[in-house]
Amino acid sequence: MIIAALIVAAGRGARMGASTPKALLPLGGEPILARALAAFRGHPRIDGLVAVVTDPAEARSVLGKAASGVALVPGGRERQESVRRGLEAIDDASIVLVHDAARPLVPRGVIDAVIEGTLRHGAAVPAIPVADTLKRRNVEGAIGATVPRDDLVLAQTPQGFRTELLRAAYDRAEREGFLATDDASLLERAGVRVVLVPGSARNIKITTPADLALAEALLAIGGKEGSDG
Amino acid sequence: MIIAALIVAAGRGARMGASTPKALLPLGGEPILARALAAFRGHPRIDGLVAVVTDPAEARSVLGKAASGVALVPGGRERQESVRRGLEAIDDASIVLVHDAARPLVPRGVIDAVIEGTLRHGAAVPAIPVADTLKRRNVEGAIGATVPRDDLVLAQTPQGFRTELLRAAYDRAEREGFLATDDASLLERAGVRVVLVPGSARNIKITTPADLALAEALLAIGGKEGSDG
Repeated sequence: MIIAALIVAAGRGARMGASTPKALLPLGGEPILARALAAFRGHPRIDGLVAVVTDPAEARSVLGKAASGVALVPGGRERQESVRRGLEAIDDASIVLVHDAARPLVPRGVIDAVIEGTLRHGAAVPAIPVADTLKRRNVEGAIGATVPRDDLVLAQTPQGFRTELLRAAYDRAEREGFLATDDASLLERAGVRVVLVPGSARNIKITTPADLALAEALLAIGGKEGSDG
Repeated sequence: MIIAALIVAAGRGARMGASTPKALLPLGGEPILARALAAFRGHPRIDGLVAVVTDPAEARSVLGKAASGVALVPGGRERQESVRRGLEAIDDASIVLVHDAARPLVPRGVIDAVIEGTLRHGAAVPAIPVADTLKRRNVEGAIGATVPRDDLVLAQTPQGFRTELLRAAYDRAEREGFLATDDASLLERAGVRVVLVPGSARNIKITTPADLALAEALLAIGGKEGSDG
């Protein structure tokens, strides 16, 4: 079973307040994207790496050696369009793991769980419980309600799919003009069963400068990878 | 306007796997509770400190000098009962900030925003956006649905209230036998408007040993306090 990782790094990262694409900003002295690539390059089950970036020439220059063996593909306007373009660059892999570069600290155990879930069920998403009380904000910026969260989880990436299932879901979404914030949504819409596997609190998504500081802190403590979903 | 901080530190912290109460475990060489107290003691607007703990004598012994000027109150079985007992120890403060000791890294900017929101509106809760895609888990452990999250936020502490509003909400909850995971829920239930103010990704809640390691690392990198709601 050939498995490819498709790293989505084409976002502008408006909330970071920097002009450089977010995935090329440094994290502990290395570009965020380089760290995301390293998480998959080092994995014995991963056979190919594709990264969708804003500007392949710029990315190649910033990444240096970290770009070697990676197919760099220019992204689209929306994340969904970027993933679609990345899928075109994947030839013979029967399973693809779609991962956001904004989660460069993804632990090995999460990648393992996603691969295993995908091999067994065709589609798998890592997730963690919602630890904080969840509130609905009303139009006035006040609390509208407290939302029960016992059966809610926070989805992470990588999300793993049989390539044919993901391609079919993307084709359908494009025909129907449906936009979503994650890949699993497209399969859910098509009625495909997507299993949940344990994610990790360490697998944070870098969106703001405070998240970047949090990621630096996580890098500093290293090790302790355990999933905790 | 007299403002008191009520620190809730009576939880057993079962997920920490230690026999010591969670709030008395060391974080960067000081008890978690001592750090939470310091965040409020150093604030120019805070006039009084109450901490609800499992065992006041034990807490006083572990805290040492950090307990000076703090009213230590024995907690109840549930968080809600602990807060109710803490409220009884607050005499003349017209505003109370209820804070979980498990969030010892609360940035100054978050405390400021909560105080300002409470002074203006009577009740304020810090919160951050839900950065991850939210899924509903079905009974088989697969994804049941993707939950729209544009108007959802993750609530943090301190939560600020006019003392009389909070006391009335607690009285009502006790009469009606209503249990909630946060204080704002009790006011919402009573129809009181609670405004949302910006929280921070740094304001993490320590629940597991991995969270404690993260908090250590955040302490080590220091600085960068910015709220990012």
